[in-house]
Amino acid sequence: MNSYSSKLVENAVNELARLPGIGRKTALRLTLHILKKDTVQAEALGNAIIMMKNEIMYCSVCHNISDTEVCEICSNPKRDKQTVCVVEDIRDMMAIENTGQYTGVYHILGGIISPMDGIGPGELNIESLVNRISSGEVNEVIMALSTTIEGDTTNFYIFKRLKEFSVEITTIARGIAIGDELEYADEITLGRSILNRMPYQNTLDK
Amino acid sequence: MNSYSSKLVENAVNELARLPGIGRKTALRLTLHILKKDTVQAEALGNAIIMMKNEIMYCSVCHNISDTEVCEICSNPKRDKQTVCVVEDIRDMMAIENTGQYTGVYHILGGIISPMDGIGPGELNIESLVNRISSGEVNEVIMALSTTIEGDTTNFYIFKRLKEFSVEITTIARGIAIGDELEYADEITLGRSILNRMPYQNTLDK
Repeated sequence: MNSYSSKLVENAVNELARLPGIGRKTALRLTLHILKKDTVQAEALGNAIIMMKNEIMYCSVCHNISDTEVCEICSNPKRDKQTVCVVEDIRDMMAIENTGQYTGVYHILGGIISPMDGIGPGELNIESLVNRISSGEVNEVIMALSTTIEGDTTNFYIFKRLKEFSVEITTIARGIAIGDELEYADEITLGRSILNRMPYQNTLDK
Repeated sequence: MNSYSSKLVENAVNELARLPGIGRKTALRLTLHILKKDTVQAEALGNAIIMMKNEIMYCSVCHNISDTEVCEICSNPKRDKQTVCVVEDIRDMMAIENTGQYTGVYHILGGIISPMDGIGPGELNIESLVNRISSGEVNEVIMALSTTIEGDTTNFYIFKRLKEFSVEITTIARGIAIGDELEYADEITLGRSILNRMPYQNTLDK
């Protein structure tokens, strides 16, 4: 006898439990919740997942998810096409978009170089970045990757690939987070924030 | 512009965020995970949810979820049909099944009486319980509901409905959990466990 009383329920629990951060207990709770709700809602959920996966497109310029061939950011005439921010994935792009501080466009790598996970430069959207830059229409590439060994490796690899072009390559500022107390900051971040010190800016009047 | 870059993604996030315990951030994380995986897996998940909801049946005897008209427990000849354990929902039934200590059958109420949530006796599977007992084939009804006001109310209502039949009505034992230290037990549980004290049983030899 299977402990879920039903192959259908067991199947749903198995599929939900494959999602990250969802164990079998949570999967069962979600399954029983779906069973309690009406059929319309269950079909809306199931179809939303299937439709999204089948119909999603990726922007042919920056690899952002998109409902059209070129995404809303790349096709927006107000965005500065001469500045390209390189990010690991769509969530990092969304995080930067949410700051409201960036008016350029993006390039989504789809991951970072990580030999441990079998991800080399060939698995990432690096060739299309090189093609974009080689067109000569981009002035600045901002590297906004994680400060990890993998992130640093990817930064270095992209820097090597792009240095033949006349494009400025920058990285986002690293330092003490706003609101953080110095004594709790780690030494590497604190050390870098001293090396990369900047002219005083009065932020109180703004 | 919508911040998810895609109506399809936004739709999937919205549907996932309707599940209990899943906020918009988690829903986005799950959505992007599904986008990364292959289509087969996304379809398996979507179809598992839709199929389960459309094809699930409830046991005509005990209201357990089932793939057949009578569930695996009710149709199992080894289960004692003269003992019926009344539980709130399928998860409580699963918890009792997992103990491996119970060989009787169940009756799933589908909730407990809770006027605050608009749930009266009419919304629960109580009539079918009364019909089951009135057939005279059941010797004992074990009430295994939560020790809350709602649980006590439901116990009392069912007791009143069943007292005209020659059936023994019991409740599961309440007391100090095994492994718990007395000094940390709440007063009500400790008080009840003294009132409901039992003859000494040697459990060390088993």
